[in-house]
Amino acid sequence: MAKETRQILLQNGLEIMIRKGFNNTGIQEILVAAGVPKGSFYHFFKSKEDFGIKVLDYYGQQSKEYMTAVFHDPNRSPLACLRAFFEEGIKMMSCPENHRGCLIGNMTQEMGSLSPAFEVCLEKKWADVRGLLADCLRRAIAAEEICNSEDPDQLADFLVNSWQGAMMRMKVSQDPETLKSFVAIIFGTVLRPVSMAGV
Amino acid sequence: MAKETRQILLQNGLEIMIRKGFNNTGIQEILVAAGVPKGSFYHFFKSKEDFGIKVLDYYGQQSKEYMTAVFHDPNRSPLACLRAFFEEGIKMMSCPENHRGCLIGNMTQEMGSLSPAFEVCLEKKWADVRGLLADCLRRAIAAEEICNSEDPDQLADFLVNSWQGAMMRMKVSQDPETLKSFVAIIFGTVLRPVSMAGV
Repeated sequence: MAKETRQILLQNGLEIMIRKGFNNTGIQEILVAAGVPKGSFYHFFKSKEDFGIKVLDYYGQQSKEYMTAVFHDPNRSPLACLRAFFEEGIKMMSCPENHRGCLIGNMTQEMGSLSPAFEVCLEKKWADVRGLLADCLRRAIAAEEICNSEDPDQLADFLVNSWQGAMMRMKVSQDPETLKSFVAIIFGTVLRPVSMAGV
Repeated sequence: MAKETRQILLQNGLEIMIRKGFNNTGIQEILVAAGVPKGSFYHFFKSKEDFGIKVLDYYGQQSKEYMTAVFHDPNRSPLACLRAFFEEGIKMMSCPENHRGCLIGNMTQEMGSLSPAFEVCLEKKWADVRGLLADCLRRAIAAEEICNSEDPDQLADFLVNSWQGAMMRMKVSQDPETLKSFVAIIFGTVLRPVSMAGV
């Protein structure tokens, strides 16, 4: 039951914070949405900052599981897995209620340089994302699907940062074309299929 | 004098909001920093939202003038102007006090999907940035410095979104390497010099 209450608070916190931001969200609002009394909140979390970090951990764990599954789809080649990750992202972000970006990106923009505790937590989340993406890039290179010579970790960081920038921009453009154009340019210029080398 | 007070409020608002975000900044804090009484604030601005938009206009105007100068440097080719824009950005962002990103990007992330008034204002700022960057890309293509066949407006959007993503990430990484790696990948793969075509 205690575990369930904690989970309800995290899920409601996630839904509100990903849409409204951390500073713009009040604890009271989360308690009302979750139908949980204030005492319970402070039983589970030391402060609003501690709660924000636990929400990030909760979201980060879900993202990691999702990315691991997409990047290891046995029916797809490594390059096709990479493409599927972004194509699925476009599908998700094309629903207007999802024009809210990614919690890790949003929190980095809002809290990255303001709170050392958030900074440490966010750096771990980025390392997880980089690790999963770089591993898929390495497999695509080993399978001779792409011929990139950049360091896979740096390339992974570039891809994920650029994708975050495209999602950020979509908050204003409200137009999935922003993300589609990202995919076309990345797969047309940055990740060059071996068959295109020399073209 | 009135004009000067308005300017002082905008400048102080810019310095605080670019660092702390819009929702995290109180009007009182700006008044104290500016040394201006509350009545003056409401003489110039209808609301905090109205002030935020005027701060964006003020910052947008400065950015536009700066970008116009960099992109039309008579001592550089169009492609060299593009590179100089990002290289100068790296220099600026390498000072720890500048790990605060760009106000247009920060506000897009924070307010893009929350306030229609901000949305309209931000869309104009992005159109300005896209226009300046796309014009420079068109000149680089005409001068046969690059051989990109993508639509220059889409390519400009891609470049600026990806750059914003790299600046966002730097708020956590605190490492200019994030931006240097962006420049290496963009100028090594996306913007291919004509001399590299077929290589």
